[in-house]
Amino acid sequence: MILPQKSIERLSRYRRILLNNLEKGKEHIYSHELASQLHFTPVQVRRDIMLIGYTGTQRKGYVIKELIDRIGEILDGESHTNAIIIGMGNLGKAITSYFNGKRTNIEIAAAFDTDEQKINRVISNVRCYHISKIKEKMDELDISVAIMTLAPEAAQEVADQLVLNGIKGILNFTSIPLNIPEHIYVEDYDMVTSMEKVAYFVNHNE
Amino acid sequence: MILPQKSIERLSRYRRILLNNLEKGKEHIYSHELASQLHFTPVQVRRDIMLIGYTGTQRKGYVIKELIDRIGEILDGESHTNAIIIGMGNLGKAITSYFNGKRTNIEIAAAFDTDEQKINRVISNVRCYHISKIKEKMDELDISVAIMTLAPEAAQEVADQLVLNGIKGILNFTSIPLNIPEHIYVEDYDMVTSMEKVAYFVNHNE
Repeated sequence: MILPQKSIERLSRYRRILLNNLEKGKEHIYSHELASQLHFTPVQVRRDIMLIGYTGTQRKGYVIKELIDRIGEILDGESHTNAIIIGMGNLGKAITSYFNGKRTNIEIAAAFDTDEQKINRVISNVRCYHISKIKEKMDELDISVAIMTLAPEAAQEVADQLVLNGIKGILNFTSIPLNIPEHIYVEDYDMVTSMEKVAYFVNHNE
Repeated sequence: MILPQKSIERLSRYRRILLNNLEKGKEHIYSHELASQLHFTPVQVRRDIMLIGYTGTQRKGYVIKELIDRIGEILDGESHTNAIIIGMGNLGKAITSYFNGKRTNIEIAAAFDTDEQKINRVISNVRCYHISKIKEKMDELDISVAIMTLAPEAAQEVADQLVLNGIKGILNFTSIPLNIPEHIYVEDYDMVTSMEKVAYFVNHNE
């Protein structure tokens, strides 16, 4: 069974909160606590967690560690995902240092740039190659996901090359929509849109 | 009239595409072209654009420049939004250099950090102050929005201070949910969730 996008998104967010609570030494959590920390409804939380076949107890709620493991079985499965990142500017570096070391199932295995200063150097624990090496490294490292943090002008051309080389998923931070075949999963994030939303609601809330 | 969040998000994305097309020298665009570039339906596009009181012609579609201006009236209004950014690591720098210079209605007017190496320096065209100066600078620069790119451990404490000093909107990149009063608009973005979604759908699409 493949879960819908919104469910996956919520499960991922539950896990972050659960890990956060676990770190603070908490062992149990009620659905309403989890809900309030995410501004979801308790009904939504209970439905999602029932859907993945986990139940808590009335008295103590969910066992945090067990629930984290159960979500992990769904989200991560047995799989290990190798990713590459294209564009090692500030955003590329931020994402790389954020990921590597934190999670074991998703790893950024190589970085690419065109800046000679960066080529063949290790940046944020990842080796950076010239962008012309994409095909070679994708094959060598068994890459399925690409994170695009390069300049928008070059994005479509690089995307075409990723598609040719068999990429399966793209996380697109370039702020332009890419023309990618339907069977490849693309997740776009545009920080200008987030910022424009905040500005709009701030300015309409006087 | 205040438009719903999803409409604002789509209008912002239309504008990005329209600007992109304008830069390429295009003057007119059909609703179905705009739709296909964003993977929306043409009906959705026509409905959104009708909602903001703009109409194209059957023969040539929308006049790109006019539609950009109309969206600008809705999204930006007369207002100029001053923002601060808290945490000038790689992500803070990426966001700051991305925004400033590009848009005239949203400006990152000051940055904050605790790293002595960064204090009182100009980074990505924005002066960086010690985090203890937040209140002073918020008053001086008439700040309504804060972008949080600092370490999650310190995020709630800084958020409390922003709330005390009258912040109206927060763009939260810290990956932990913040406890913020209801009347303040908060937009959360967690790149781990985006990445986990891509990995999930890639691994379930064999």
